[in-house]
Amino acid sequence: GDILAGKDRAQVCTACHGQKGISSQPIFPNLAGQKAAYLKKQLTAYKNGKRVDPIMQPIVTSLTEIDIDNIAAYYESLIDNPIFTALLGQK
Amino acid sequence: GDILAGKDRAQVCTACHGQKGISSQPIFPNLAGQKAAYLKKQLTAYKNGKRVDPIMQPIVTSLTEIDIDNIAAYYESLIDNPIFTALLGQK
Repeated sequence: GDILAGKDRAQVCTACHGQKGISSQPIFPNLAGQKAAYLKKQLTAYKNGKRVDPIMQPIVTSLTEIDIDNIAAYYESLIDNPIFTALLGQK
Repeated sequence: GDILAGKDRAQVCTACHGQKGISSQPIFPNLAGQKAAYLKKQLTAYKNGKRVDPIMQPIVTSLTEIDIDNIAAYYESLIDNPIFTALLGQK
């Protein structure tokens, strides 16, 4: 996915998931550094109804497959920060 | 939740979610530093069938509510590392 395009498209996510992917509310998940493949699977599941959430559902309807790829790549990229990787001692 | 008890009980999670909550496979989510309330909601949803996953379902059946509280607290605690918090510049 295209990380920069993903960052733009992810503006709609920041209200709940935070500017840097650390969410503002304990009930909303952090997305910073999350696995892109996992995020893609979940966004797609919200879109096709396999996973149900009243907040996510209307938001994902407007996302194209490419948007989903880019957003997922963007959030995963928030782990590719050398300090972060060094801190966790593993990728 | 009790973080140490959670760490013990979370041994069953490490196979897929990694020793430090950074998962071994791109399709499995990282759990390190994830919000406890979110994790509790998802583990409970797997347990009552609101969320469906063939891998998670058999694992959560053996978890009590206290186990779920402790495991959630344990994974969230993996963010409470001062360097990690300082790195992200926000909690």
